[in-house]
Parts: sequence; structure tokens; C-alpha cells
Amino acid sequence: MKSKLYLYLSLFTLLFLLSSCAVPIKSDPLPSWNDGATKQSIIKFVSEVTNRSNPNYVSSDERIAVFDNDGTLWTEQPIYFQIMFVIDRVKEMAKDHPEWKEQQPYKAVLENDMKTLFSSEEWISELFIVTHTGMSTTRFYEIGHKWLKKAKHPKFNRPLTDLVFQPMLELMKYLKQNGFRTYIVSGGGQTFIRLFAEQIYGIPPEQIIGTLFETGYKVVEGTPEIYRLPKVFLFNDKGTKAVAIEKFIGIVPTMAFGNSDGDLQMLQYTQSGKGKRFMALVHHSDSTREYAYDRDSHIGRLDKAWDKAIDNNWTLIDMKKDWKVIYPFELDR
Amino acid sequence: MKSKLYLYLSLFTLLFLLSSCAVPIKSDPLPSWNDGATKQSIIKFVSEVTNRSNPNYVSSDERIAVFDNDGTLWTEQPIYFQIMFVIDRVKEMAKDHPEWKEQQPYKAVLENDMKTLFSSEEWISELFIVTHTGMSTTRFYEIGHKWLKKAKHPKFNRPLTDLVFQPMLELMKYLKQNGFRTYIVSGGGQTFIRLFAEQIYGIPPEQIIGTLFETGYKVVEGTPEIYRLPKVFLFNDKGTKAVAIEKFIGIVPTMAFGNSDGDLQMLQYTQSGKGKRFMALVHHSDSTREYAYDRDSHIGRLDKAWDKAIDNNWTLIDMKKDWKVIYPFELDR
Repeated sequence: MKSKLYLYLSLFTLLFLLSSCAVPIKSDPLPSWNDGATKQSIIKFVSEVTNRSNPNYVSSDERIAVFDNDGTLWTEQPIYFQIMFVIDRVKEMAKDHPEWKEQQPYKAVLENDMKTLFSSEEWISELFIVTHTGMSTTRFYEIGHKWLKKAKHPKFNRPLTDLVFQPMLELMKYLKQNGFRTYIVSGGGQTFIRLFAEQIYGIPPEQIIGTLFETGYKVVEGTPEIYRLPKVFLFNDKGTKAVAIEKFIGIVPTMAFGNSDGDLQMLQYTQSGKGKRFMALVHHSDSTREYAYDRDSHIGRLDKAWDKAIDNNWTLIDMKKDWKVIYPFELDR
Repeated sequence: MKSKLYLYLSLFTLLFLLSSCAVPIKSDPLPSWNDGATKQSIIKFVSEVTNRSNPNYVSSDERIAVFDNDGTLWTEQPIYFQIMFVIDRVKEMAKDHPEWKEQQPYKAVLENDMKTLFSSEEWISELFIVTHTGMSTTRFYEIGHKWLKKAKHPKFNRPLTDLVFQPMLELMKYLKQNGFRTYIVSGGGQTFIRLFAEQIYGIPPEQIIGTLFETGYKVVEGTPEIYRLPKVFLFNDKGTKAVAIEKFIGIVPTMAFGNSDGDLQMLQYTQSGKGKRFMALVHHSDSTREYAYDRDSHIGRLDKAWDKAIDNNWTLIDMKKDWKVIYPFELDR
């Protein structure tokens, strides 16, 4: 009798031990990626840099992965979503500016004359300043969140926040599970990206590097606020992406993901680090499920960076070939 | 016989369980702090904001603690350690600049004429630019690390990296264990602080916000580098500390620690966040073990911020009264 009791006790304790300390069964960390060279190269790289006995091991302190946003983590066609915000916001603000009906570039916006609007970079800059500055950061978040709830994508008729790439979500999660800090390094506005990055990507505000406006500290009726000033502080594109990585992170990344020529220097900078690094470009090759564009596109042009990717043996992620699904909502079907 | 075997097996398994899953015994998280109101207020605050059922609970996403560096985490007397670097570096560089012997402000440095040197802020700026820019970031780190190995403090005759405040090390460790991300927000140079922050404070490069020089991306003989340009990009003092917190972190801190008027706005900004916040100033009150200075000091003046601390009921950390030891090396005695 006693002997049986001990046996049960032992077995019970053993089971408890096994259940609490068991090694989880390895499942596919990237289920939306087709099996093939791209997926295998990612998994192989991550296995190597996280394995202490591998010559390519990278300590967890140094494990940084950087991601461009527009076109790399979510769709950027037919126009950058931040420009949709600018246009919608100008229309909203126009109620208080009757003079805009006859004044460019506002007239072009109000008449939906995109051809005229996009004929001048200075006009675009002016509209960014009018819609993004002259208010506190808190106020900008209020305006932005309100807009984001309503805004729909013209092709998919869905909230813009639905248009994130499911395979990239899996990739970021996989990297985090392997001790990486994942940063967004985008030409888009930092405050704009902070509107949704935590919700849709799980990336906290301090890991968002983007284009910055100058800001000032102001105490209004006893309350300190950060006020957005009508001047660009850092335009986070091309070489400046590398500059910003040094300022915000201070560590050369181990992995870098982009999709256009604006990401070239970020990838070159990543490659310049000691030891093995992983550089990849997302190639928009799927006109049915998303969009197809590369060397000749006005948005997200992938031309010089493509040549460099081939020269340097960087990974080209072919959306059509490598991804089982593009968006999370495809999983629900 | 069998029964005994099972008994041993059960006991052994139980012991294993207890050793692997046991709740650690709570020990004093701040052993170098004297028991008293200051220590108790810190522990009480941290207990509240980390307790889900407390009305002052702060989610771990939002748990940010910011620390000034000079005078808050390490000594800043008789001059900021970064100025010691500037002076030593000018003397080193003077070998290649024979003309400096007759040219101000270099002449003053070479003749150890501090009174003349500190008579002009522009001169100090010039020396910062000459010693901190015109090189790659990698090269700056080489120079800085070499200097840091040799530099000694005039009063203590010890490496500067020994002069960190033991109670603040314990505080930062305690906060990290409670889910806080600890940031340095300093008027000192970001790259300068990155030389030692990981080693002496355990704070990684991406959690160092400091004064920034402009930098550029340059490819030199095929290798990308970040080049330091002779212009200040962000002078991280006073209101700009709040501005920088918004840019680098994007979350209003839950706790802020400073020691001088330059930290006032950072503490006010922290206080402006919703819910309960913790603001504290380190008061240098110990002329024997460290230095004693406040309202009239040229370095680390604590005057307006002191008044505001009293008005707002911020915590004043009295080094003489609140700290059992100042430096880690006192523990070895």
C-alpha cells in the first residue's frame, strides 16, 4: 500500500515536473512563408546567430533587426498611406480656410487633382507641414487616431491597419522570440507610425525611428507639452537611415529589411558590421493579391538597391513566390 | 526496499522542484540606502505602480525611468568628466598643432589656465567640436576608450568609472527587476556616455539620450561609416530633455531623477503624465565623501529646481543622510 502511494506520488511529481519544465515542441515559426530558399535562409541565419557554439553567434545585447515600414511591413500603393492622411486632413481643415478653394496646392487637393498636386515636391512638403505641425503631440495623436478609424484602402475597401503583411508579422515575432529587438526605420513620420505600430506590429514607441519634425517644450496653462514646429528635423531616408540608426540605437544591426532604393544605405550599413549579417529586400511581384512594381515605380522604386542586392547576395523576398498569404485577413477565409 | 526507493525518489524530486521553482526570499533591494522617508517613498511607489490591483498601477509597456547622468549617476566635480576628456585630448592633439601654443583657447588649455579657458562659452564649444568631431564614430570610440583607461579623478585618484553612485546602481537594478526600462537623459554627449554606460550602469546604447552632434553617412574605401560633423544637432538640456524624451522614447516617464536646474523640465514633463509619478533630485550634501554644492554652484546648480521640488513635493535625495555609501569601492573596505 505504502509502496503504491510512493509510486503514485513519484509519478505525479514527475508529470508535474515534465509539464512545467518541458521543452516546447518546435512548430513552424513562419507558417505563411512557402518552403524554399528564402524561408530556409532566414531560419538558418537565426539559428546560427543565436547558437553560442556557432562561429556566427551574436550576443543578445547586439541582436537588432531593422525594418523599413511602407512597402516592407504594410502596403504603400497606390500612394503612401500618410499622404492619404494629408489629403483627408486638408479637406477637413478646409472648412476653416475658405481661401484654399482658389489657392494651390490646396485647390488641387480639394478638386482631387492628384496630377497637379504631385507636380511639385515643395507643395507636398507644405501640405505635410500644414497637417502635421502647429499643434501639440497629444493633439496630433487625437487627430490621427480619429482618422485611422475611418480611413479605408481604395483597392481593398478595408481599414489601412488591415494591410500589414502577415509573413512579416510572423518574422518579427520569430525574431523577438529569438532575443532580437525589432526597430522600424522608416521615411514616414515617426509620430504617424506611432499611431498604429504598437497595435498592429507590437512595436513600442521607443523602437520607431522615422522622419522627425522639430519640436519644442512649452508650458500651456501650467501643463507642459511637446509642440510640433513647422520644420523638418531629420528626413529619415537613404544615408540618413544609417545616421538615425547610430543616433537612436548605437549598434550596427544584425538584420535589415527594406523594399526600395531608400533602404539601400541601411542595408549597406548593416552589412558593414563585423561577422555575418542578413540583408533582404521585399519585391512587390504580386499584382493580384497586392501590387507589382519595381524599377520604374514612382513609389517604392527598387532599382539601384536591386542591383546591389544581386551583387552582394542579399535575399530577395518575392511576395508572389515566397508568401502563402499577404494579409492577415486572408487567414480567416 | 522498494518502498524506500520510492520515498527517496519522491523526496529527491520534491527537492528538485522546490529548488527550481521556489519563490526567492525578499531581500532589501536598496541596501546602500539608509532606512528613512526617501528609501520608503521609492519602495512604496514601485510597489504601487507594479501592483495590478493598485489604482496607481502602470503597465510594464509604460514603465520608463529617466536619469540624468552627471551628478545624478556619477560625480560631476570638480569639472564634468567630459571636460577632462576635452582638456586631455587638446593636449594630445597639440603635438600636431605647434601653432596652438600661441592661440586661444588652446593656449589656456596647454598652460592649465582654467580661469581664462572658462571665461568664454564659445571657447568651450570650439574645444568640444575640435575634440569630438571630424572623425568617424568608430574612431571616436577608440580615442575615448583609450583615454578612459588612463584618466584619474583628482580628488580620489581613481578611474573615473569608479565614481558612480552605488545607491543609484541599486536603484536602477531594482527598477529593471520591476519591469522598468531605464534611460539616461543627459546634457553630456551621447557618444561619450556610450563609452562606459553599458559597462558601469548596464544601460545599453539605445537607452542613452545625450547631446548629439550632426553626423553623416559616408562610404570610405567601400566601407560605410558614420562621420561626426562639427555642428551640434541637439543640445540636450532643460526643455530639450523633454523634447528628446518624446523623440527617443515617445512615452511620458513614470519616474525621473536629476540633480540640477537643467533637469527641471524633465521632471515637470514627467509629472505632467496621467496618474502618479515619481520625481526626485539628488542633493550633493556630503563634502567629505563626495562634494557639497547647490544654489551657488557653477556646475550642477540646484536652485530653481530645488524651489520647484519643494512646491511640488518631489523627493530630495540627501546624499549625506540617505546614502550609507557613495561609491562601490567603499563596499570593499
